[in-house]
Amino acid sequence: MKWPERVTITEVGPRDGLQNEAAPIALEQKIQLVNRLSATGLSRIEAASFVSPKAIPQMANAVELMARIRRRPSVTYIGLVPNERGARDAIAAGVDEVSVVVSASESHNRSNVNRSVAESLEAVRGIAALCRDAGIPWAGYVATSFGCPYEGAVQPAAVIRVALAYAESGAYAVALGDTIGVGDPAQVYELVTRVSAEVAPLPVRLHLHDTYGRALANTVAAMQAGATQFDGSVGGLGGCPYAPGASGNVATEDMVSMLEKMGINTGVDLEKLLEAARFAQQIVGRRLDGKLLRATAGQG
Amino acid sequence: MKWPERVTITEVGPRDGLQNEAAPIALEQKIQLVNRLSATGLSRIEAASFVSPKAIPQMANAVELMARIRRRPSVTYIGLVPNERGARDAIAAGVDEVSVVVSASESHNRSNVNRSVAESLEAVRGIAALCRDAGIPWAGYVATSFGCPYEGAVQPAAVIRVALAYAESGAYAVALGDTIGVGDPAQVYELVTRVSAEVAPLPVRLHLHDTYGRALANTVAAMQAGATQFDGSVGGLGGCPYAPGASGNVATEDMVSMLEKMGINTGVDLEKLLEAARFAQQIVGRRLDGKLLRATAGQG
Repeated sequence: MKWPERVTITEVGPRDGLQNEAAPIALEQKIQLVNRLSATGLSRIEAASFVSPKAIPQMANAVELMARIRRRPSVTYIGLVPNERGARDAIAAGVDEVSVVVSASESHNRSNVNRSVAESLEAVRGIAALCRDAGIPWAGYVATSFGCPYEGAVQPAAVIRVALAYAESGAYAVALGDTIGVGDPAQVYELVTRVSAEVAPLPVRLHLHDTYGRALANTVAAMQAGATQFDGSVGGLGGCPYAPGASGNVATEDMVSMLEKMGINTGVDLEKLLEAARFAQQIVGRRLDGKLLRATAGQG
Repeated sequence: MKWPERVTITEVGPRDGLQNEAAPIALEQKIQLVNRLSATGLSRIEAASFVSPKAIPQMANAVELMARIRRRPSVTYIGLVPNERGARDAIAAGVDEVSVVVSASESHNRSNVNRSVAESLEAVRGIAALCRDAGIPWAGYVATSFGCPYEGAVQPAAVIRVALAYAESGAYAVALGDTIGVGDPAQVYELVTRVSAEVAPLPVRLHLHDTYGRALANTVAAMQAGATQFDGSVGGLGGCPYAPGASGNVATEDMVSMLEKMGINTGVDLEKLLEAARFAQQIVGRRLDGKLLRATAGQG
């Protein structure tokens, strides 16, 4: 097996993590979480989502959050945007980078944003134009890349369709999201290999959920297929709306711990990240699923 | 990446799992657990440990358990033995196979059985002679193969020393135990490759703990190194004596779920195994760490 020398991690806890927690977290605490994460050596943090606070109250105050976090020049602060309006807000709020999400499966996309995949990809073109004008890079996420809660299996062709649309619209990276954590290592290896060939030279990032405990196994498979970019959520913040009580995103510190043990450089200070994970646990007021958090609970 | 067509799983929940639960489980319930596991398609179950019940009350009544379980001809029932006395008891109790454990690291072996590694390997030769006379195959486990709670890093040479002693004493298989779950995929790939070459043609089995969430990632790496035998503990029964609150053995059903999704045949009926995991959860009276258990908790 061959391993990359370094891996770049995008921390999505403040956005994907907190969005999937039952109750909204106070703005002050969200700011403090982002600030703590900024001090760990992480170079990329998805800090906010520029959605309607009526639709997703957990993500309210994105503009104020961006204005008040202590920004470090070494950190790229990313905003998720659902549409052109969100893109304008995100750009005005000063994000360094934008993320967009479209599902590979029609029914998940419909359920998520009440649009067809084609309609969502059309909206992405508008977002892309705004980002281009503002000189802001953007990455395209393909949700349900490895399986859909409504349709079950998702064909690679459906993933490639969205990935190619991103590439044509000017994305600088394509991310494959395992929204419900059903991907397996053989599938991940094959799909990352195929999508990488289709969108080359764009990098393929992995956004893995740990619903069935496979996130780190899938990380290994993705690295064998050449991937060096991964998302993580501090502490394992978040959950799975389709399986209440199940784990959500892979815990960033568990991923960092494994990679660093393998001699793969992440640039992250594990102790500081673990402190941020303990803080995340404190602000959500429930025991998080991160394994390192639990294995060191007596020492915390 | 290349994958095996089939993987053979040894279920160690009734032994390694229950031994690491805080409170002993009633004999009737242990018998019922073994019986339920026997009905899942699992072909190998470590059912009991023939140790002093004073030393390990969780493992009391091994002889009675072996006499009263409903044995299926398709299942190999295994007994762990610490010494010749235990081996005599296990053979008299009618086990199909014997397991022995010696640590790769001196201090863990000393802490575990108050003997040096050399003394333990000498005792193994006595056990091996008894097994040979009885016509019973035995497998040798190398505990702390990937790291030691007292010494930290463990040199591959220390693992190979024990593995070769097993091979010379007549073991039919060598198992590498990641006692504290610190192994990483790069290390697992390398060590399995090396030990396999040393003990060939004996198979190398993996006994992985999920303390840091790496058990399935390490399973992937071990399969790349040619391994096709793995231990699992139903529901994730058990824990880690060195990290209270942490996960113990990898949950068998999570491993089966991943492998079957990959098209790798385990011979196990996942639904029946999940029912056995729910029963295990019930008899220990605490929420177990198995991911599939939790993701399906609403449906159970």
